[in-house]
Amino acid sequence: MNAKKNSDPTPMDHASVQWLATSLDSQHPADTADELENLSLAEQLEYIQEMDVEDASESITEMERHDRNALMSQLSPDFAAAILEAMSPDDAADILEDLDVSIRARIFKKLEREDAEEISDLLQFDPDSAGGVMNTEILALDHSMNAQQAINLIRDRVEETEIPYYAYIVDEFRHLRGVLSLRDLLLSPGRTLLKELLHEQNLIYVSFDVDKEEVARLISRYNFLALPVVDHEQRLLGMVTVDDVIDIIQEEASEDMQSMVGAGRDETVDSPWTYSLRMRLPWLVLNVLNSAVSAYVVHLFEGTIAQMAILAALMPIVANQAGNTGQQALAVMIRQLAMERFNRKKSWVAVLREAKIGTANGLIVGALVFLGLFTWTHNLGLAVVMAVALGLDMLLGAVAGASIPLILKELGRDPAQASSIFLTTLTDSIGFFTFLGLAAVFLF
Amino acid sequence: MNAKKNSDPTPMDHASVQWLATSLDSQHPADTADELENLSLAEQLEYIQEMDVEDASESITEMERHDRNALMSQLSPDFAAAILEAMSPDDAADILEDLDVSIRARIFKKLEREDAEEISDLLQFDPDSAGGVMNTEILALDHSMNAQQAINLIRDRVEETEIPYYAYIVDEFRHLRGVLSLRDLLLSPGRTLLKELLHEQNLIYVSFDVDKEEVARLISRYNFLALPVVDHEQRLLGMVTVDDVIDIIQEEASEDMQSMVGAGRDETVDSPWTYSLRMRLPWLVLNVLNSAVSAYVVHLFEGTIAQMAILAALMPIVANQAGNTGQQALAVMIRQLAMERFNRKKSWVAVLREAKIGTANGLIVGALVFLGLFTWTHNLGLAVVMAVALGLDMLLGAVAGASIPLILKELGRDPAQASSIFLTTLTDSIGFFTFLGLAAVFLF
Repeated sequence: MNAKKNSDPTPMDHASVQWLATSLDSQHPADTADELENLSLAEQLEYIQEMDVEDASESITEMERHDRNALMSQLSPDFAAAILEAMSPDDAADILEDLDVSIRARIFKKLEREDAEEISDLLQFDPDSAGGVMNTEILALDHSMNAQQAINLIRDRVEETEIPYYAYIVDEFRHLRGVLSLRDLLLSPGRTLLKELLHEQNLIYVSFDVDKEEVARLISRYNFLALPVVDHEQRLLGMVTVDDVIDIIQEEASEDMQSMVGAGRDETVDSPWTYSLRMRLPWLVLNVLNSAVSAYVVHLFEGTIAQMAILAALMPIVANQAGNTGQQALAVMIRQLAMERFNRKKSWVAVLREAKIGTANGLIVGALVFLGLFTWTHNLGLAVVMAVALGLDMLLGAVAGASIPLILKELGRDPAQASSIFLTTLTDSIGFFTFLGLAAVFLF
Repeated sequence: MNAKKNSDPTPMDHASVQWLATSLDSQHPADTADELENLSLAEQLEYIQEMDVEDASESITEMERHDRNALMSQLSPDFAAAILEAMSPDDAADILEDLDVSIRARIFKKLEREDAEEISDLLQFDPDSAGGVMNTEILALDHSMNAQQAINLIRDRVEETEIPYYAYIVDEFRHLRGVLSLRDLLLSPGRTLLKELLHEQNLIYVSFDVDKEEVARLISRYNFLALPVVDHEQRLLGMVTVDDVIDIIQEEASEDMQSMVGAGRDETVDSPWTYSLRMRLPWLVLNVLNSAVSAYVVHLFEGTIAQMAILAALMPIVANQAGNTGQQALAVMIRQLAMERFNRKKSWVAVLREAKIGTANGLIVGALVFLGLFTWTHNLGLAVVMAVALGLDMLLGAVAGASIPLILKELGRDPAQASSIFLTTLTDSIGFFTFLGLAAVFLF
């Protein structure tokens, strides 16, 4: 199967990204997952049952969601349970979460009791919260241990696990007291108690119910490799690691860009096309209803248009331009909300900033359109009406584009959701109304 | 200054994200950078000169680009040089890259020779390549060393630097031979030579001229903490670390979303508004020219519209709906290109997928609009023309939305750049033409 991967390389990338000694045995699970996805479900089943459970488990973890669910649903409950047991409990919980309730129940019965308990504890957490993405396999050290004991304990654990990013220091009730890096431990005299090393620490942690995107912002802001997660009594539950954060950030960017225009949040080019259809159709229908509003506005002015049909040719320019101005503001604002913690005051200052940009752009583009239209038609009144309507609608577009995500956010909604559709409804209908209204009043 | 940060918390977040013992001394540089950004330039200068050079250097690294450039340009060349010397060379190079040539030259003269050389070497690399984002402070171990020697060397270096993520193993010519984790070293018998540990390794590395977004994709795909960067003779140059990758992914998401609608790639709500104006205006002017094309199409049918003004009310629905359908395809395709390595065949299969979705959405929405319009107007011909034009334009929108990023990519351009503007030009003008053309032929 490995040959397959290399048989269709993009020539440009092939020369610069090199792969050494990729024997099948040492192949990365992400690559195996890719190959699995290119097979039919029947072939996947055959292939996965020939792999050892550890490898199968790692590859399935890396598979794309839709493919993974289809495959897991077809495995025998025994084999599925064995595969889940070989995963870290948080990955197993993520996979089970996606499966049909009946299939999930059947697999659950086959899990060993301890694993089943751990996984079902994790399933209690909201999948979009810190608890839902945290890793529970962490190193917690008692604060009454000394530095040498801690190092010995880490060395003993190396056999079974990775070197921990950080050691989390807890008291006898598992309350989180501090975080130490391997470097801190190695630099301390062996007899120093861990609790003495924690002095004046700037400890950053999150509670399990914090939104996963807030966790991603903190890790990204402070360049951490992991962030500890605690319960409401500040007892250590787990940690979110930087590789999960990368996935969260990637997902969030896709979600924002796609939900802005009413595509599915988690759609990819690999999703079944019927899934995409189901996700998008409701928003397209909403969009028809919205455009019916602006069509109604135009309908009110049919008499005016019948007398002066050039208005029909010019009105899309107004709407289009205001829509584009608004989308620029929208994009910058949605990214702002994605990357920084929400700050109400700063956000409304940003709306003012967009109003300034919209005014300046409206004046400049309005002036250009005035010149162009007057040169073409020699109709001064028409050129003035067009320029004024355009400028006003562009200002409206800028303010609306910047405000819509904030209003959605204040309402507790996803700031991106269908924001582009709402924006266009506004800029279209108000643009048509301003332009045709001014024309009706001043040109006849 | 710390009190300031806490005086304006978002109540919701305040309760759940906790900060312990945030004395000013132990404050994270990212927080200090935020506070600096809220001060006037004069206050920033005063404040930064009171900080010790190490802290000032870390905080400036974390500042937003526009603020940072303004501040660095105002510092005395001596002080600026001292601050750059305290940074890692790659951060220093990034900052110098942004400054005016004359200011850069003045600061360069004050740098110590060794630092100046290292930084100017880094400035040779394209800032969007692996070389431009790599960290050169890495641990390279000679492959003829044994495991115990390697561990001793790491322990000795702990005083001056962080624990390395990975140890890169090189031969006597600094050719990269392999990568070992601390865990690999600790688990090996002390006498084993490093070269023996490299057996059958699946080594992944990039050449310095690989695009930084490709580096981000590799690190994200394989869950690495760092990826080694080599020259064309495979000699080790540095590594790109996961925290830089998070920044690259965040930037890319902003760039895609913003450049899609013709806003500046690196705009944020903190950019000077005149900067945003300058970035956006050219695209808005292009957009006017584009909408002039669709206005011209409508102009051709002014006679038809004058006879039947309801066409002017309905035509925006066609354009709007096709535009929205296209933007859904556009968003999914741009995210695909951002997240996975470009695969030509897979991408064109994705266009077919969008054509299917567009056809189905076109049929369903077309049928709904037919029913609605016929119920309202009892004009069968008009309802049929509208439904057919709408369905066809939605299919066109879907195919265009999916193809535009691919065509831009094949032309060697940014797949997102102004793609939404190009799309709207197509869906507007072809939508108007189809609808008004069918109406002119069949309704009179």
